[in-house]
Amino acid sequence: MHNLPSLLDRIAAYAAENPFPDTPRELYEPCDYMLTLGGKRLRPALLLLAYKLFADDVERALPVAWAVELFHNFTLLHDDIMDAAPLRRGRPTVHTRWNTTTGILSGDVMLIHAYRHLATTGSPDLVADLVRIFNRVAIEVCEGQQYDMNFESRQDVQLAEYIRMIELKTAVLLGGALEMGARCAGANSADREHLYQFGRLAGIAFQIQDDLLDTYGDPAKFGKQVGGDIMQNKKTWLVLKTLETASLADREALNHWMHTPQNEPGKVEAVRAIFDRNSIPELVGAEKQRYQTEAFGHLQAVQVPETRKAVLKKTVEELLEREQ
Amino acid sequence: MHNLPSLLDRIAAYAAENPFPDTPRELYEPCDYMLTLGGKRLRPALLLLAYKLFADDVERALPVAWAVELFHNFTLLHDDIMDAAPLRRGRPTVHTRWNTTTGILSGDVMLIHAYRHLATTGSPDLVADLVRIFNRVAIEVCEGQQYDMNFESRQDVQLAEYIRMIELKTAVLLGGALEMGARCAGANSADREHLYQFGRLAGIAFQIQDDLLDTYGDPAKFGKQVGGDIMQNKKTWLVLKTLETASLADREALNHWMHTPQNEPGKVEAVRAIFDRNSIPELVGAEKQRYQTEAFGHLQAVQVPETRKAVLKKTVEELLEREQ
Repeated sequence: MHNLPSLLDRIAAYAAENPFPDTPRELYEPCDYMLTLGGKRLRPALLLLAYKLFADDVERALPVAWAVELFHNFTLLHDDIMDAAPLRRGRPTVHTRWNTTTGILSGDVMLIHAYRHLATTGSPDLVADLVRIFNRVAIEVCEGQQYDMNFESRQDVQLAEYIRMIELKTAVLLGGALEMGARCAGANSADREHLYQFGRLAGIAFQIQDDLLDTYGDPAKFGKQVGGDIMQNKKTWLVLKTLETASLADREALNHWMHTPQNEPGKVEAVRAIFDRNSIPELVGAEKQRYQTEAFGHLQAVQVPETRKAVLKKTVEELLEREQ
Repeated sequence: MHNLPSLLDRIAAYAAENPFPDTPRELYEPCDYMLTLGGKRLRPALLLLAYKLFADDVERALPVAWAVELFHNFTLLHDDIMDAAPLRRGRPTVHTRWNTTTGILSGDVMLIHAYRHLATTGSPDLVADLVRIFNRVAIEVCEGQQYDMNFESRQDVQLAEYIRMIELKTAVLLGGALEMGARCAGANSADREHLYQFGRLAGIAFQIQDDLLDTYGDPAKFGKQVGGDIMQNKKTWLVLKTLETASLADREALNHWMHTPQNEPGKVEAVRAIFDRNSIPELVGAEKQRYQTEAFGHLQAVQVPETRKAVLKKTVEELLEREQ
């Protein structure tokens, strides 16, 4: 059985054998650079792990896995422009190192190359199905990004809307990656749906946990600055839950801090204290657990021997127990 | 036999029956707006005309025609941002009416919806082939836009590079539209290739003519300001041909004007005089005719009765004889 590192090696080998075209260099150099900022290649790895529930040789799924990774990097590239983010993982973003124009066009062509990889694989039946899944998910991701941007200027965001936003913006792509992996391996539609739901629900749990870690993570382990969401007045799960459940006094106090500048002295501690006395960390934990339990129920329901599920199960469990 | 207006009606009806999703409104309203700026729907019309060389009911080709129109509008939307263009056809561009962030994300989702329409049609074989043609052309269009931007800062652009740039940026999409229409109708690969070459070569002829009209068009008929390319120091076919063929004195004079501001008094007249005394208008006409003749040779070679070709032939002939 393949383990995760060996699958990541296969992905890296496929990427090395299938680079972007050489020219125009001004178009493709930023694409190559973006991929070096990209991170852990979680999505293509999940896709291959879903494939391996049903079949052994992952060869056929590699172009699809790489398509998902390119799509993810396209979204990061354009999101960085939209968020005016100067850095990603401590290095200059594409539009900072080059300019916005470069960021737009290199992102566009990266998205189209994702479709190109998707369409190189297998039978026409498979290609047509994969393109349809990919389209559905890609549209949802754009819609999620739009909702996220809308929320910045809205004062009446509801918790249910927030969950829907993170579902669209991040969770459906995890679900879609698993679904596409299963489709590549010829899984039946019930198993494909269970894997989609597994990824979608685990993705929501992951994002809720991310909100918790941003405020309560161990500064030594958390990759970003702990308290960053509070400083930036982000309407996270923690904030929205407080606004739905806390006393009037606490809601007013939180609203006050949410309208102060990023570096307001005492801000992070004060907001954290409001969360604490409203048991927000415990409520986050329970909410995350609820999605997590539902997610693993779907993995359970997939009709393959439990031994085949071990690596996928362990990989997602570790993701949901991470402290950074 | 369908004529062009009835095909445009079919396209409009398909678009009306297959709108963007209702929400998020902030994402899709700019897409709808962009389509109102979009123009004559030449590309989907050409696609349907190619289809009708081989088959009668265009129903099956409508989603593909609309995909091409959405793709074209996506490129216009993002190009307007990259060119910092305030107006399109006299109305505010998307990034001007909203903002750059909106322009980027609405363009992205419009591109993905193009793929969605593409994948709704016909058999998996057809979908897989169409996606591959679409990918190839879409990548080339992005590469052409990159070369176009590169040329702005380069002083050594060669005429052959310029032709290659306009081929990628605009001509391959015309060729691809015809090729996709033929593929939808089940045409053989030889006829599909002839139609692709017909569109590609006619597209180059069209663009060369566009350069001519920008400087020599009838102000009463030309849609944009005559002389606009000269004012903006654009490296058009006219400029590059002059730099390749004129005397040193004229090359130096042209280079001088190409480094003056947009509103430099006497600029348009002076540059036009340089073109005139180097017979550039005649050379443009001959070059355009060369591509046009080669283009129609490919249409001639398509193995269907000449009567079936009448509408397509007339449509492209009129495009290449237009004065505005």
